[in-house]
Amino acid sequence: MSEAYGPGAARAGGGSAAEFAGLAKRAAELDLADPLRAKRTEFLLDDAGQPGAGRPGTGTPVIYLDGNSLGALPAAVPARVADVVAREWGQLRIRSWTESGWWTAPERVGDRIAPLLGAAPGQVVVGDSTSVNVLKAIVAGVRIAQSGAGAARDEVLVDATTFPTDGYVAESAARLTGCALRAVEPHEIAATAGPRTAVALVNHVDYRTGRLHDLPGTTAALHAAGALAVWDLCHSAGALPVGLDVHGVDLAVGCTYKFLNGGPGSPAYLYVRRGLQPRFDSPLPGWNSHAEPFAMSAGYRPADGAARGRVGTPDILSMLALEAALEVWDGVAIEAVRVKSLALSDFFLECVAALPGGSALTPLTPSAHAERGSQVALRCADAEGVMGELIAHGVVGDFRPPDVLRFGVTPLYTSFSDIYRAAGVLGEVLDDRR
Amino acid sequence: MSEAYGPGAARAGGGSAAEFAGLAKRAAELDLADPLRAKRTEFLLDDAGQPGAGRPGTGTPVIYLDGNSLGALPAAVPARVADVVAREWGQLRIRSWTESGWWTAPERVGDRIAPLLGAAPGQVVVGDSTSVNVLKAIVAGVRIAQSGAGAARDEVLVDATTFPTDGYVAESAARLTGCALRAVEPHEIAATAGPRTAVALVNHVDYRTGRLHDLPGTTAALHAAGALAVWDLCHSAGALPVGLDVHGVDLAVGCTYKFLNGGPGSPAYLYVRRGLQPRFDSPLPGWNSHAEPFAMSAGYRPADGAARGRVGTPDILSMLALEAALEVWDGVAIEAVRVKSLALSDFFLECVAALPGGSALTPLTPSAHAERGSQVALRCADAEGVMGELIAHGVVGDFRPPDVLRFGVTPLYTSFSDIYRAAGVLGEVLDDRR
Repeated sequence: MSEAYGPGAARAGGGSAAEFAGLAKRAAELDLADPLRAKRTEFLLDDAGQPGAGRPGTGTPVIYLDGNSLGALPAAVPARVADVVAREWGQLRIRSWTESGWWTAPERVGDRIAPLLGAAPGQVVVGDSTSVNVLKAIVAGVRIAQSGAGAARDEVLVDATTFPTDGYVAESAARLTGCALRAVEPHEIAATAGPRTAVALVNHVDYRTGRLHDLPGTTAALHAAGALAVWDLCHSAGALPVGLDVHGVDLAVGCTYKFLNGGPGSPAYLYVRRGLQPRFDSPLPGWNSHAEPFAMSAGYRPADGAARGRVGTPDILSMLALEAALEVWDGVAIEAVRVKSLALSDFFLECVAALPGGSALTPLTPSAHAERGSQVALRCADAEGVMGELIAHGVVGDFRPPDVLRFGVTPLYTSFSDIYRAAGVLGEVLDDRR
Repeated sequence: MSEAYGPGAARAGGGSAAEFAGLAKRAAELDLADPLRAKRTEFLLDDAGQPGAGRPGTGTPVIYLDGNSLGALPAAVPARVADVVAREWGQLRIRSWTESGWWTAPERVGDRIAPLLGAAPGQVVVGDSTSVNVLKAIVAGVRIAQSGAGAARDEVLVDATTFPTDGYVAESAARLTGCALRAVEPHEIAATAGPRTAVALVNHVDYRTGRLHDLPGTTAALHAAGALAVWDLCHSAGALPVGLDVHGVDLAVGCTYKFLNGGPGSPAYLYVRRGLQPRFDSPLPGWNSHAEPFAMSAGYRPADGAARGRVGTPDILSMLALEAALEVWDGVAIEAVRVKSLALSDFFLECVAALPGGSALTPLTPSAHAERGSQVALRCADAEGVMGELIAHGVVGDFRPPDVLRFGVTPLYTSFSDIYRAAGVLGEVLDDRR
């Protein structure tokens, strides 16, 4: 916790109306001292003077705590997309592949994301969905692990608590490479990896609970066992430091529509550690990853560098919307985002504990900062119904089965006052249901 | 050739200046009689009163004959994209996944494309790149072919003249399924298919020469051999009738940024014949193809129908730009497009034959209509240099190695006067080089 935000106090159980009300002043003070507060103006939210369609007719601005599912719209995006459509596509047309830099966008946008992941340039490429990149990473990872002395490695480990798509695609990748798939609790992957392990796919942050897994330790243990580490960064990139290079991560994937605010279904990214790139043997060797794509030769010869992870023609409208969205990161250190993220989730937990009805809520969010991502997850009876009422009252989080209320904190645009007001509405909804 | 456009005459060799000049009147007459001519106004081109940035400062409108590479911008797209960004993403945010129909867009847009392919609803899904869909189609096709009595089928045939990415990805799919890959000239695939053939991947139209391959005959021959037919429709969909259902095609893929005008890198589509859908076993079983995606269950259970071909979160900005672009097809029969396409390419060949310098050009475009796609390909010395000069003079086609000038005809917005003027500029460029 940095001095900017002051000390927080997480506590379980119910509080009192007076205790909760006292936190309003704290929220205002925290906002005033927030070094990132000016970033909020770079997003189109429902603040005064902005087009708030979230709750038509009510006049109450929406409090958006679902940026860990779909990031809010950065203000720079609409004009940029309009220019891409009307001028680059509509007027320059085919010439834009070179003149407007479309062709090289996957690597260029990748290099813009790279610092947020702790990656040096030339290792991140943008394109395809996270699922497709999981297939590339695991198949290519198994092939590397099985080369040379690793031929006997025939097992893929997957985080047993993973977001479903990773598990489904990991199973497919294992099947396609003749490996067995084994689901293991993330904290047990380090101890489970052995001489048969080719690759392990682990989520950096659990999408349900917000638990932050031990990337450095798990990666080191996988390497000690001779296996490769593939990390899914969907719920950590843009919320906290990842340190891909410093921790020697082999391969990583992630989406760009959560904390990176790229827009609905914006393209995902693939990180391939520089030292592995010459051995990266993709199951999707599309023409965009060819060393000379416009030679149109019948034989495949992979490009050097991050481009080796490309496949087909990149999706330009979404790619360039993402590029514009990434401008909000100018001048922002990911470490500062992390400090505010923890302060926000601490404050959320503090507000919940102070609610008179707070005992109906069980925080799943780990209390230890070292184990916490950038969301608050609360277990609650009829969580689906409660979230429906919250949304109807202008507090947007989401429900994850079977009984989890999930609230994302996105430090570039979430304020402490947002958190206070959201907790207040949550308290009212719970009161009304008693 | 329909009566609307009158008779054409293709002829090889050079003509005379007078002969060529005489074709100007024919072009004007053909345009006047063109039943599709009003469609041109639904595109943003460089016509009078439109923003023509193609050749800044010259005042000469660009003649765009590269719509077989990147379709022109339909007029409905800019406003639709602006609304998707500002309102659906910016204001409704996460709610748009249901309220704005984002979640179901891949099937909905697929059903909008389906009639152009001769497919009944529920068999086309939009998403990913063509390359990624080739992997899905071949791997799933091999698995179907190898089921039951087909276990010994261990060979994938691929069109030897294919666009490179299909060949590269087919090789990967063969490797992942333990098959051998065999490259065969497209007209020999029917005779080559045998008891070991699992799947053949064939291009409906050759991207270089514009040759239209025999989809009905080749498909029937593959079926007779017990194999599956996978067609790449990139250069035929939106230009001519495909007849997927009537010809019993098993699987098909294609892009949407050529004759379907979806914009740069707009998502591709996958067709899975209804009867095969229950057996479609995807190598990319992402969460979007799960029967209950939001149950977030650890076990994979595939959805019924076209959704089984989905993978990850769909790319909404590009998907909905495509949906808006498809509105230009309202009231258009693909048969009428085909009639005009052939009339345009006939007229182009007639113009080339009439050019005094026409003997420097060798048409690769088949003279028989039954073998012709929707482009004119001309072999020419220093084709790359010639195309560079054409573009500098406002005639935009493209160069394909080693020696091909390629001009797409896109009947919704290409006029006969465009063709006449383009041929005239080509003649001038060739004259200047002599």
